[in-house]
Amino acid sequence: MSVWVRCRHHGEPVYGILADGQIALHRGLPWASPAPVGESIAAEGAELLAPCSPLNFIGLWNNFHAAATKHGYSIPDAPLTFLKSPSSIVGPEAEIVPPPFYEGRVIYEGELGIVIGSRLHNANEAEAEAGIFGYTCVNDVTALDFLQADPSFPQWARAKGCATFGPVGPAIATGLDWRTLTVRTLLNGRERQNYPVTDMIFPPPAIVSLISREIVLLPGDLITCGTSLGAMPMRPGMVVEVAIAGVGVLRNRMTGG
Amino acid sequence: MSVWVRCRHHGEPVYGILADGQIALHRGLPWASPAPVGESIAAEGAELLAPCSPLNFIGLWNNFHAAATKHGYSIPDAPLTFLKSPSSIVGPEAEIVPPPFYEGRVIYEGELGIVIGSRLHNANEAEAEAGIFGYTCVNDVTALDFLQADPSFPQWARAKGCATFGPVGPAIATGLDWRTLTVRTLLNGRERQNYPVTDMIFPPPAIVSLISREIVLLPGDLITCGTSLGAMPMRPGMVVEVAIAGVGVLRNRMTGG
Repeated sequence: MSVWVRCRHHGEPVYGILADGQIALHRGLPWASPAPVGESIAAEGAELLAPCSPLNFIGLWNNFHAAATKHGYSIPDAPLTFLKSPSSIVGPEAEIVPPPFYEGRVIYEGELGIVIGSRLHNANEAEAEAGIFGYTCVNDVTALDFLQADPSFPQWARAKGCATFGPVGPAIATGLDWRTLTVRTLLNGRERQNYPVTDMIFPPPAIVSLISREIVLLPGDLITCGTSLGAMPMRPGMVVEVAIAGVGVLRNRMTGG
Repeated sequence: MSVWVRCRHHGEPVYGILADGQIALHRGLPWASPAPVGESIAAEGAELLAPCSPLNFIGLWNNFHAAATKHGYSIPDAPLTFLKSPSSIVGPEAEIVPPPFYEGRVIYEGELGIVIGSRLHNANEAEAEAGIFGYTCVNDVTALDFLQADPSFPQWARAKGCATFGPVGPAIATGLDWRTLTVRTLLNGRERQNYPVTDMIFPPPAIVSLISREIVLLPGDLITCGTSLGAMPMRPGMVVEVAIAGVGVLRNRMTGG
């Protein structure tokens, strides 16, 4: 089990393993034979960046039994996916900044993120599980009023892809058992989401296997597993924290207020 | 006006400018101060690759007056976008291979592709036009029966993102006036699409400007401008060619048959 972070060091992004308040810097990517540099820096005061830069940033809709029951959604046959723009990604402590002209609702969605460690195409569940490098926290921020702004075409890419709408981090934890994980989301310190990963309609190995039948998944790709009950609008100035034990707390503030 | 291609040379992808049957190899990216290597290779027999590797691969729906009129679609207020998986991209002559378990219709859509040359966020139309590096041909291949396979959620990411469903090329042409361009698509040599870019509801500078209000566009990103009349199913073994004067002919064969 390792906790990988990416931080800025002498102006450059560098990966490292976090332990005992120190980040042991590495060269290379965590999923591609990283090598220790032989230098550590204090975690306190380090500027953490988003821990991955995926080519595919895939989100899921309607992946929790509790939410499906509450909203009256049917149980899907396959993961219902959308793509988030990779350039929406920001790291811990980055501000969430809605488009200046947008005046609608902006909601947080605390989610478990799967970071892919190897190239996967038509992977079965065992291969998929072996191809998961680790887990992170994602806030799948959504401009809710873009979604149905045009009655003829639901605008998922637009609602989900705005700059800063993809907070990810603070770390990628390897060796976690997803069956034991719980996702908590706090708004201004008050718990608004608390749900177990075992309530997923498609758990991580099934998600990865089923998506890989169509989309080629690459090392560093990120799949965010959908959210359950309690996703709500944020107002300017509010702070959202997505917390998963073993990964840490992803904290971001909505600009303004 | 330059015609940029990417080819495999000694096993590595290298950019070059195509002229008079020769490819003048360059180091670096076409949109980032490329420098001539001082070596040329014959275009004939060169293995061409997809000419860009975007982080954002954005598609448009309902962007042509002729198609909107025929199908009875309303004219949208803003570009109606979806994201295609960047790992769906393949180059000229690559085979289009539907997922093995998929038995539905696969359609071609011949389209104009915009290749972005600089970082654009909240760009006005003049900045957007200046930020367009060049144009390419795209075949926005779609697994049509995935789109509405689940009545509760239209699956654009899945229908559009399959491996090999993003043929791009054969080149990126700079200095073209989009107002003069026509997109032609041939199926087994027979013309099936032939439409002028001026029929677009949102022409390239407007597309880029409006999308950049939400999504941060990066150098090398690719926006495919939607298709007009004549997109039809392909059958195994069929050859599709997307042709734009000045760019060239993007030729791909559907596997099987």
